[in-house]
Amino acid sequence: MNWPETVTIKEVGPRDGLQNEKIFITTSDKISWINQLSHTGLTYIEITSFVHPKWIPTLADAMEVAKKIKRVDGVTYAALVPNLKGLEKAIEADIDEVSVFMSASETHNKKNINKSIEETFPVLEKVVKKAHASGKSVRGYISTVFGCPYEGDVSIHSIGDISEKLFDMGICELSLGDTIGVANPRQVQEVLTVLLKKFPAKSLAMHFHNTRGTALANVIASFEMGVTTIDSSIGGLGGCPYAPGASGNLATDDLLYMLDGMGVLTGVNKQKLDKAALYIQEKIGRPLLSHNIQANQGKIKI
Amino acid sequence: MNWPETVTIKEVGPRDGLQNEKIFITTSDKISWINQLSHTGLTYIEITSFVHPKWIPTLADAMEVAKKIKRVDGVTYAALVPNLKGLEKAIEADIDEVSVFMSASETHNKKNINKSIEETFPVLEKVVKKAHASGKSVRGYISTVFGCPYEGDVSIHSIGDISEKLFDMGICELSLGDTIGVANPRQVQEVLTVLLKKFPAKSLAMHFHNTRGTALANVIASFEMGVTTIDSSIGGLGGCPYAPGASGNLATDDLLYMLDGMGVLTGVNKQKLDKAALYIQEKIGRPLLSHNIQANQGKIKI
Repeated sequence: MNWPETVTIKEVGPRDGLQNEKIFITTSDKISWINQLSHTGLTYIEITSFVHPKWIPTLADAMEVAKKIKRVDGVTYAALVPNLKGLEKAIEADIDEVSVFMSASETHNKKNINKSIEETFPVLEKVVKKAHASGKSVRGYISTVFGCPYEGDVSIHSIGDISEKLFDMGICELSLGDTIGVANPRQVQEVLTVLLKKFPAKSLAMHFHNTRGTALANVIASFEMGVTTIDSSIGGLGGCPYAPGASGNLATDDLLYMLDGMGVLTGVNKQKLDKAALYIQEKIGRPLLSHNIQANQGKIKI
Repeated sequence: MNWPETVTIKEVGPRDGLQNEKIFITTSDKISWINQLSHTGLTYIEITSFVHPKWIPTLADAMEVAKKIKRVDGVTYAALVPNLKGLEKAIEADIDEVSVFMSASETHNKKNINKSIEETFPVLEKVVKKAHASGKSVRGYISTVFGCPYEGDVSIHSIGDISEKLFDMGICELSLGDTIGVANPRQVQEVLTVLLKKFPAKSLAMHFHNTRGTALANVIASFEMGVTTIDSSIGGLGGCPYAPGASGNLATDDLLYMLDGMGVLTGVNKQKLDKAALYIQEKIGRPLLSHNIQANQGKIKI
């Protein structure tokens, strides 16, 4: 089997995790938590989202968080931006890398960003151009790659077309999102078979949700295909607002447990990561759903 | 990647699931539940355990359950037996296949069956001989194959030796148990690399627990190695009494969700399986931990 020697974990908890939680974590708690994450060995943290606070009130303090965290050398601090306005704020906050996003399915794209897929491209193109002009790299996200809550199956070829347009704009990496956690390893193989004909494995990342328990199986399938950058969210924070009751992102600590056991190098310290997970669990005020936290209840010391 | 066309699911919920639950499911509820399982398309159900009720009081009605369920053609009804006394009861109940068990680690074996590994072999040999003489096939279980709660790592070579002795006795299949849910895909590959040099893939089964979220990833690794018989427990019922708070067996419904999505044939009807899961969830009186049930709260109709 094709096990990688090293894997890059991209931590999305402060953005994708918190954006799907109901309670507002205070700005100083967010900053303290992200500062902890900066010392775990993670090299990439998506710290917030510069969307309008009307849409994601739990991240309304994006600017203050981005400005007040203590940045650590070697860590890329990223943020989501939906449009030029968001980008301007991200530039003002001196974010290292911005992420743009769209969906692979028309209905989800419409509901999520109020535009058709075709209407979305020119908006993102302007964002990418201006980001580059400001010296910022841009990451792209495609949501609902493995299934849409409204349309069901998503065409692999339309994913290929969207990917091509995003890479043509100049994104440095594309993250393929299983937004509602329906993917299976064969689908991962099928989608990557198409995309890897067009783009190098190093330019792709996988963003799985564990709603149906398949996230780590999908990670293994991704490794087999040569893709070794994995998004995850500490403690399994977050999920999808359109799928209530469903568990959230693949948990960074579950991913790390598996990778550590396999001898795959990530540079991330499990003990420090666990402490940061317990810190945010206490602030969120409900048990986090990562298997790691559930299995070690009471055993991880803060 | 090496996806199988068909996979055999061996349902262990009525035994491994219920033996780790605290509450006693009434005999008539057990019978009704197993009768539902018999009509899901499952071809193998481990229905109970003929150990002394002092050790597993929740299965004290093993004889009555085994005698009163309505057996369906094409389904193998199996039961666990620890010794000759248990075997005699299983024969009286006309069980189709009996399972014997031991651990790969001395301490777990001692705590679980109060014997050293060496002392266990002659006991099991007598059971296998007598079972064969009564026309019953025998399955073997090895526990703690991927890690022991007392000793930690377990030697692959001692697993190989134990396996050899069990096959020499005449077991028809060996199930490799990740009793405390610590296995990772690389370990699965390593253990199977050793065992598949000695025994055909068709004679092995994998018995994973999802305590740390790795069960389906381990299933994928097993497929890659050519092993296609998987034990699982409906709804994720059960677990390990020595690891409180930890989630239980790989859930049959989670396994089936993944296999159905991949187009792998199992013969099991998901809708009927989900109904049987909700039935036992109601009797157990707590939410079951399968991702499938958690994600579909309120959506599955009884």
